[in-house]
Amino acid sequence: MSTPNPGPGNGIGCLYGVGVGPGDPELLTLKALRIIQQAPVICSPQAEASGDSYALEIVREFLDPAKQETMRVTFPTDDAEGAAGVWRQAAQDIAQRLLKGQDVAFITEGDPMLYSTFAYILQGIATSHPEIPVEVVPGVSSVMAAAASAAVPLVTHGQRLAILPAVYGIDDLREAIANYDTIVLMKVNRTLLSALANLETLGLAGKGIYVRRASTTGERVVRQLTEEDLDYFSLLIIRK
Amino acid sequence: MSTPNPGPGNGIGCLYGVGVGPGDPELLTLKALRIIQQAPVICSPQAEASGDSYALEIVREFLDPAKQETMRVTFPTDDAEGAAGVWRQAAQDIAQRLLKGQDVAFITEGDPMLYSTFAYILQGIATSHPEIPVEVVPGVSSVMAAAASAAVPLVTHGQRLAILPAVYGIDDLREAIANYDTIVLMKVNRTLLSALANLETLGLAGKGIYVRRASTTGERVVRQLTEEDLDYFSLLIIRK
Repeated sequence: MSTPNPGPGNGIGCLYGVGVGPGDPELLTLKALRIIQQAPVICSPQAEASGDSYALEIVREFLDPAKQETMRVTFPTDDAEGAAGVWRQAAQDIAQRLLKGQDVAFITEGDPMLYSTFAYILQGIATSHPEIPVEVVPGVSSVMAAAASAAVPLVTHGQRLAILPAVYGIDDLREAIANYDTIVLMKVNRTLLSALANLETLGLAGKGIYVRRASTTGERVVRQLTEEDLDYFSLLIIRK
Repeated sequence: MSTPNPGPGNGIGCLYGVGVGPGDPELLTLKALRIIQQAPVICSPQAEASGDSYALEIVREFLDPAKQETMRVTFPTDDAEGAAGVWRQAAQDIAQRLLKGQDVAFITEGDPMLYSTFAYILQGIATSHPEIPVEVVPGVSSVMAAAASAAVPLVTHGQRLAILPAVYGIDDLREAIANYDTIVLMKVNRTLLSALANLETLGLAGKGIYVRRASTTGERVVRQLTEEDLDYFSLLIIRK
């Protein structure tokens, strides 16, 4: 509800960071749907390597190309050098539309505040144009969607949850497992196989649940993983 | 999309665990809305102490009391002794409707897999009636909603997130702060004040953002907390 710089009517558009959920279009919120249907400009991030925008695929059925412009922001896949410049430029391009009075909906799969590229746009706009109003619309995260698909609670009363990105060394896992009831490993890849070997070392064999593309037609929930199950849109839930 | 025991048509209703989001009714998903409007029985948890069902308040405008039955499940506020029996009985009451062929939507604020009472119902039904189909509909968690309200990203690429319940000893915080980029303390209360004192001890003064009732008319985002801001539906985000 609150915005850092609320205030329509000053001739400046509002930047919306809109979480469009984990993949199933029916997991959009009513608010996300309203905003992406009203915004004249839809901005969607896409990985340089693939050329696809997963967020855009999720909402495509709700957009009207005759009335809405789609801006694409291409970002380096590995988020390494060069990425900062890409995001600064993207923020400037988006700011141009906003300063002309157009609202811009920056769509992002899952939630805009959890491992989303929207964080970089938000920072860029806040730094260069603090007068631009921003509103963040939270979405269903892939973490919750994966737990729903697996029908496995992440945490209950009094328990602790750790969410780790793609760093699966045995020391990281050992620390997390010592202190947390549930660990979610995000965006697993080939290093996952060594993580699974680590689970056995740590006495947690069989405690991992791998969920690929939760809520989509490509969904798979498996306890015994093979290499062909690996997929960027996947995660591993470890319940002690 | 997947269900542990899929299969309508066997004369048994489906148990839906439906996340209804953090408070703003517009943060329901399209799927949650469809299911709570179709289900003949809505089951809502309510704390013994308050007598209110927050989840029910969120969705009330979407229900039709003439066509839908509302079942309330009252649970002990402190989740201590006696709670297990309450949940077992509630699961039996719900199972009765399901075995008669009625779908039941168990609604829960936020997400059903993150600190939700639905976990107890799920376990109870899975144990006593494994033949009953269950589908979990993920929702927007208060964690994401709070970050959205504060316009503060929780984590970006490569960062780690810890979510801790109401245990705020300095040792807990020290461990979390040593190993994680962002720590979310859930359902803060009077012990929060000592947590804030701990933040100063740990050199993190001013790094905490307190968000009360994110996405509702009672929302407040503050960096300097006073005792009257304290509220059960609130959390603290600590960004290093």
